[in-house]
Amino acid sequence: MNIGERILQQSEILGAMTEVQGEVTRTYLTPMAKRAGEQIIAWMKEAGCDEAGWDTLGNVVARYRGASENAPVLMTGSHMDSVVNAGKYDGLFGILSPIACVYALAAQKKRLPFTFEIVAFGDEEGVRFGVTLIGSKAMAGRFDDAWWSKADANGITLKQAVIDFGGDPTALASLTRDPKKYLGFIESHIEQGPILLNDGLSVGVVTSIAGATRVRVNLKGLAGHAGTVPMAGRKDALACAAQMTLAIEEICAAGNGEVVGTVGKMEVAGGGAMNVIPGEANFTIDIRSGDDATRLAYVSRVEARCEAIAQRRNVSFAWDAFFHLSAAPCDEAHQAQWAQAIAAQGVQVKHLPSGAGHDAMSFKGVLPLSMLFVRCGNGGISHNPLEMMTADDAETATRVMLHFLERFQA
Amino acid sequence: MNIGERILQQSEILGAMTEVQGEVTRTYLTPMAKRAGEQIIAWMKEAGCDEAGWDTLGNVVARYRGASENAPVLMTGSHMDSVVNAGKYDGLFGILSPIACVYALAAQKKRLPFTFEIVAFGDEEGVRFGVTLIGSKAMAGRFDDAWWSKADANGITLKQAVIDFGGDPTALASLTRDPKKYLGFIESHIEQGPILLNDGLSVGVVTSIAGATRVRVNLKGLAGHAGTVPMAGRKDALACAAQMTLAIEEICAAGNGEVVGTVGKMEVAGGGAMNVIPGEANFTIDIRSGDDATRLAYVSRVEARCEAIAQRRNVSFAWDAFFHLSAAPCDEAHQAQWAQAIAAQGVQVKHLPSGAGHDAMSFKGVLPLSMLFVRCGNGGISHNPLEMMTADDAETATRVMLHFLERFQA
Repeated sequence: MNIGERILQQSEILGAMTEVQGEVTRTYLTPMAKRAGEQIIAWMKEAGCDEAGWDTLGNVVARYRGASENAPVLMTGSHMDSVVNAGKYDGLFGILSPIACVYALAAQKKRLPFTFEIVAFGDEEGVRFGVTLIGSKAMAGRFDDAWWSKADANGITLKQAVIDFGGDPTALASLTRDPKKYLGFIESHIEQGPILLNDGLSVGVVTSIAGATRVRVNLKGLAGHAGTVPMAGRKDALACAAQMTLAIEEICAAGNGEVVGTVGKMEVAGGGAMNVIPGEANFTIDIRSGDDATRLAYVSRVEARCEAIAQRRNVSFAWDAFFHLSAAPCDEAHQAQWAQAIAAQGVQVKHLPSGAGHDAMSFKGVLPLSMLFVRCGNGGISHNPLEMMTADDAETATRVMLHFLERFQA
Repeated sequence: MNIGERILQQSEILGAMTEVQGEVTRTYLTPMAKRAGEQIIAWMKEAGCDEAGWDTLGNVVARYRGASENAPVLMTGSHMDSVVNAGKYDGLFGILSPIACVYALAAQKKRLPFTFEIVAFGDEEGVRFGVTLIGSKAMAGRFDDAWWSKADANGITLKQAVIDFGGDPTALASLTRDPKKYLGFIESHIEQGPILLNDGLSVGVVTSIAGATRVRVNLKGLAGHAGTVPMAGRKDALACAAQMTLAIEEICAAGNGEVVGTVGKMEVAGGGAMNVIPGEANFTIDIRSGDDATRLAYVSRVEARCEAIAQRRNVSFAWDAFFHLSAAPCDEAHQAQWAQAIAAQGVQVKHLPSGAGHDAMSFKGVLPLSMLFVRCGNGGISHNPLEMMTADDAETATRVMLHFLERFQA
C-alpha cells in the first residue's frame, strides 16, 4: 500500500468515528473526539514521532525531534472536528499527510534541522460552542477568556467540557507558542472548491486566506394586495432584493476571481404570502477576497449600487456590515518553496487564494504561515459526505510536503 | 348627518365588534359575527326593509319588496367577515350602502319594479375554515359538501359551527337562488387598490373580476462554500430565483395595466446560511388579469422566460401551476348603467378591473353580475387597519347605487 492509499484508508477509519450514524459528525471534546484523537496518537507514534499526546485543551500534539538539541520548531496541523454531516478529508488530511511525512523520514532515520510539530486541533469548525478556531487561537496566544462560559446546546460550558475531557483550563497559558522558538506554521488542506479540479492539477500554492465582510440588508417597501396594486406604483421589497442580488453577482463576477460575493439567505419578513406584495425583505451578503483593499472596494461598490436601486424603487434601505475579517496572506518565502516542491513532483504550479477560513489564519502576525491545497473531487463539493480526494492526490500532496520539509529555509 | 357620515359611523360601530381588541378581526359563525349580524338586521329593519334575518348558514338576508307581487329580485350584498386585523370598509360597505339606499327609497315610500335583496354574507375571506366565499357560493348553488367537514383551528367543523350558531345544515338547498326569479347580482366594494385614488375619482365601474394563476417554482442548483467556489462556476439557485423575479416584474409591467404579477414568497430551502451558496430555492408567482386569454398569454411568457434563465444558469427548474381561477367579467348592460349613474353624479367615468376576488364572482354563469368600486384612501391600502374611505365617497357611491337602482333595466 502506498502513502496515498494509506491516508485514504485512515480517513475512512476516522470518518466512521461519528456522533451520528451514517454521517461524519464529530464535534469538540466529545467521546468521538476522544476516540479519533487516540487513533491519531497511535498513528503518530507508529509513524515514528518522538512524543504524541493530548494537550490541556483537547488538542493532540506530536513532535518529531530535529537533528540538534534546541532546534527551532516548524508547526503544521489541521482540525479533527467536523461540521454536521461533513466530508472525510476536511481538516483530517492536514493531520494525516504530515504523519505520513514523519513515517517516511523515520523510515530513513532522517532528522530535519528543526523539530516538526504536528497538531490535530480539537476545534476549528465551531459547531459545539459557536466559537471557531479554538485550538489554533489558543496556540497563537489569542484565546479569549470570554469563551470559557460559552455553552453547547445542552448548557455545558467550554470550561466544564474541557475539565470533563480531562483537560485543565488553568493551564491554558502553557499552550501558547513562543514565536522566537517557532519558524512558522504550514497547513495542507483539501481545497473545498473546484479551481484545481477545473485546471486538472492535484495541488496548488495558497496565496492568502481570504478576508470577509458580512452584511445584513433590510428593505422596507409597502405591502399590498397582489391583485389590486398596479405594477407601476409598487414598492415591492422582494423585487428590490432580487435586483440587488443580481447586482452583487454581476459586480463580483466582473472581478475575474479576485473576489466572490454571495447572497446566502433571503426572506420576506413574516414569511410572506402568495397574494401579498412583499412589504419588507431581509437578505445577507458575504463578500471575500484574498486582499483586504480589494474586498473593501467591492463592498463599497456593492453598497453604492444597492443604495441606488433602493432609491430608484422608493424602498427604504438599511445596510448593516456587522462582520469584518481581514485576510491572512501566506508568507512569500514559503510560497516560493511550496512552488518548488510542487514543480519537483512534475505538477504545474498554480497559485490560488483560499476562500474558506483555516487554522493557519490564527497565526497571522504571530508566525509566518502558508498552505498547500489539494484537489477536491466531485465538482469541488465540501462540508458534505460527497467530498472526495483520490489516493493519487493524497500521495502527491504528501510528497510535496516531504520535499518542502527536507529543503525548508525559514 | 348625511348618508356618507352615517355609513362611516356604522362602519365604526361594526369595526368595534372584534374578536381581538385593538384590531378588526371578525370571523365566520362566531359570537362577534352574531353581534355584527344582529346590528345589521336592526339597521335593515330601521331603514325600511320588509324582512330581515338570519338564513340557515349564518348569512343575513333582507328584502325590500318590489312594486308588484311576484316581482323578480335584484340581489346585492357583500361580506361581514374580515381578515385578521382588517380594515373597516372591506365587505361592510357593500352591505351598508344598499341599506342606505333602502332608507332613501322607503323615506319616499318608493317601490322599485323588483324586490331588492341585500345579503350580508357570513364568510368570504375564508379565515376560519380555509374555504372562501361560502355564503355566496351556497346561494349560487355551488356549495361543496366536502366543506362541511373542514375544521377551524380548534377542530370545530363547519357543520358543527353552523349548528352551534343556530343554523341547519340539512336546509342548505333552500338557500340556492333560482336564476329564473333573479335579475342579477350587484356589489359595491372599496377598491382595495390605488387606481381611483391616483385618478382623483370617488367611484369607478368594474369591468371584470380578475382571474388568477398561481405557480410554485422550485429551483435546484448546487450548494457550495461561499468562499471557495468562483463566481463563474456557480449554480446559485437564489440568484436564479432573483433573475426570474425581475423578469416577471418586467414582463408584467410592460402590460400597461392589463396584468399584474407578484412573487410573494421566496426561500432558500432549509433557510440557507450566510456562507453557503444556495443550492435550492422556492418561490411563488401570482399572475392576474381581468381577461383569461391575456392572463394565460402572460403566464406562458413568464414560464418561457424562467425556463430560459434556468437553462442558461444550468439550474433545474420545476414549474407547478397549481391554481387557476378564470375571470368573472361584469355584465356589459350593467356596466353601461353604472357608467350612466356615475356620470349623473358629475364624476368622470372610469372603468377598471378588480384584481381581488369578491362575492360577486360566485354568481358567474348563474346571474348577470357587476360591481361598483369606491376609492380607497391611504395609498390604496386594504386588509389593514389603515384602510380608509371618506364620508364624501361613501355618499357619492350610495347616490350612484340609488340612481342605478331607480333606473335599472335587466
